[in-house]
Amino acid sequence: MPVLLNIGTLATCRAPGGQGEIHSIPGAALAWGADTVRWVGPENELPSEFHSWETWDAGGRLVVPGLIDCHTHLAFGGWRADEFEQRILGQSYLDLAGAGGGIASTVEKTRRQSEDDLFNRAAGFLDRMTPLGVTTVECKSGYGLSLESELKLLRVYRRLADRGPTRIVSTFLGAHMVPAEYRERRAAYLDLVIGEMLPAVARDKLARCCDVFVEESAFSIEEGRRVLLAGKALGLAPKIHADQLTAGGGAELAAEVGALSADHLECISEVGIRALAASSTVAVSLPLATLYLHHQPLPARRLIEAGIPLAVATDFNPGSAPSFHLPLAMMLACTLQRMTPAEALKGATRYAGRALGLEDRIGSIEPGKSADFAVLDADSVNQWLYHFSPNACVATVARGAAIWNSAGIC
Amino acid sequence: MPVLLNIGTLATCRAPGGQGEIHSIPGAALAWGADTVRWVGPENELPSEFHSWETWDAGGRLVVPGLIDCHTHLAFGGWRADEFEQRILGQSYLDLAGAGGGIASTVEKTRRQSEDDLFNRAAGFLDRMTPLGVTTVECKSGYGLSLESELKLLRVYRRLADRGPTRIVSTFLGAHMVPAEYRERRAAYLDLVIGEMLPAVARDKLARCCDVFVEESAFSIEEGRRVLLAGKALGLAPKIHADQLTAGGGAELAAEVGALSADHLECISEVGIRALAASSTVAVSLPLATLYLHHQPLPARRLIEAGIPLAVATDFNPGSAPSFHLPLAMMLACTLQRMTPAEALKGATRYAGRALGLEDRIGSIEPGKSADFAVLDADSVNQWLYHFSPNACVATVARGAAIWNSAGIC
Repeated sequence: MPVLLNIGTLATCRAPGGQGEIHSIPGAALAWGADTVRWVGPENELPSEFHSWETWDAGGRLVVPGLIDCHTHLAFGGWRADEFEQRILGQSYLDLAGAGGGIASTVEKTRRQSEDDLFNRAAGFLDRMTPLGVTTVECKSGYGLSLESELKLLRVYRRLADRGPTRIVSTFLGAHMVPAEYRERRAAYLDLVIGEMLPAVARDKLARCCDVFVEESAFSIEEGRRVLLAGKALGLAPKIHADQLTAGGGAELAAEVGALSADHLECISEVGIRALAASSTVAVSLPLATLYLHHQPLPARRLIEAGIPLAVATDFNPGSAPSFHLPLAMMLACTLQRMTPAEALKGATRYAGRALGLEDRIGSIEPGKSADFAVLDADSVNQWLYHFSPNACVATVARGAAIWNSAGIC
Repeated sequence: MPVLLNIGTLATCRAPGGQGEIHSIPGAALAWGADTVRWVGPENELPSEFHSWETWDAGGRLVVPGLIDCHTHLAFGGWRADEFEQRILGQSYLDLAGAGGGIASTVEKTRRQSEDDLFNRAAGFLDRMTPLGVTTVECKSGYGLSLESELKLLRVYRRLADRGPTRIVSTFLGAHMVPAEYRERRAAYLDLVIGEMLPAVARDKLARCCDVFVEESAFSIEEGRRVLLAGKALGLAPKIHADQLTAGGGAELAAEVGALSADHLECISEVGIRALAASSTVAVSLPLATLYLHHQPLPARRLIEAGIPLAVATDFNPGSAPSFHLPLAMMLACTLQRMTPAEALKGATRYAGRALGLEDRIGSIEPGKSADFAVLDADSVNQWLYHFSPNACVATVARGAAIWNSAGIC
């Protein structure tokens, strides 16, 4: 059972406190047994029972909770690099979708891919997230949009969860958009989602959450409410893609149905902010999507001032956020959204864990929680996110085991 | 003498053509002898004289010219991570400078550092730029601001040039700001720059270029003109930090004195655009500084439409651009400045070489030029810059030698 010594600063991200309170410990030590943290505190207060344990050496570096990417669309077929250029030259996301591009083109490619091919590709992404300090990834379906293809994607995520070492949280997003073959029969598609997909997902325990894209171009508030309540009745926790392109009342719906999270929110209204503030829903900011779509940034300071916990995630997908680089999303949360580095860290750890309903197990470094953490070549959280380097993370530990170790800390 | 075969696409970035014309060759081969390119073209047209050469295998990947970071402040003491947080919370760059932070605080720390310490730290940065595909780096003095400290910085750059493998271009920036001890005697500081520093720099051949920060908070147009013309008379090519925080006529001055480049330009006026378009000066965009300072982006499309060659660089420095990640700057040139990936590539290769007065030797893959190139795990330039990954570069070759090789291409 190891003890990590010589930690320059350890950001626990424990309660209590608001967005910027990360409860750092200078000169810390951290002990864990099997997959669970046993003790954390100043090294000179390390209880004697841990003195005989195996020691690891952090080399004076920064230690933070394992990063949690609480919003990705990890498994998909193909890419959409040419749309990137087309958007730069002035076409909008919705223009491209109208021209047969956008989500629909990824759906087509995803349906054609085998479960094994999707699994191998997604596993490759996860393996490249590990060296960045990421220990938990939420993964959405939503590029299948048929019973068979949605279940295929969720089976990929179950296999990835079984494979480890990254912790996977699966979300069913059958209501991502109305697929082409249902364009003139949206009611029939909703019946399929609610009447067939959701029961099959629940029966096979293929997802923890149910998400809906509430947007003019996708689903209405009323449609979103139906899907989320149906999912909730089957034990799936609600999540919403809300107020991304227009202020459509998605934040209010999230509060109303008791959603774990309302994600995107670039266009959130004052009414939406008040609704979230009065709820237990986490707001999830996705600054890579803001950057790639040339959108206005989420009004982070207004949300934080309203007391809304604000998570940060990548939104990794082949259209609007084609990068799985969570530390880059955190740096952009600072530069585009004006979150402080401490606030961005809390957003990618504790509040991201809350957005997945797993705050009791992940997102902070405390006795009893999963021993998930990252060792960073920086002397402070400010320094880490300010000096954006190709990769500051020298070690990643998930459930007590080193899954990345480039500087010989153990 | 090697031949690189099995290249998916090779972007030559050769003449002729405008910003977006990179003259790609699908299915290419590339032969070089010693440090110089001998042949490039479709692999099935490879002349027989090269068939017996040693072969390397690009694995179907993308090959681009070695990246050129044509604007950095590479050697400096300390960091300024806390200012990053202060700016996020609303203080401006100039507020912080007024409070004793900003460039002045880096000057203090830089003066205290030994030449060896500065050398070792800067060498460490270069060694981490190499795996990103960077083969040439421009390095400015300007954190010394005394005869002794400015020469110390330029000696560091000379030692880095001698060390290799990265090609170093040194720029004297004694007119970065008026140092504290000359605050009430700016004329005396200008006399020092022009009368003592410049002659010493020229005598010891310590710099190729002379730069001035023309800005309300730094030097006026008239002061900048004096310094640049004095440098030019001593054989130093002019460069200007122009129109970053305010439209101050810097672009017009660059055109007037025949500067190699006018850098920053976020606030360039219409008159400035016309002046650059009628000159041979390259515009250099620094999107990391835009992002970190929460500024408006440079109007890239207006410059490109005016026919101005537009380079892309990092501006790496401890204040406004604390990252040496040139591919990130290129991705931001696409997302913040709406340059296409091909335009950003031309900006970080051919036009960056022109901004250093070295276009005859670097910046494109052509017979007779330096064998500097990067092999990227992508199937197109669009795909490379759109799917921003921790590092897509698997091999870097500078002056004919592999200086980074993570995928066994040779």
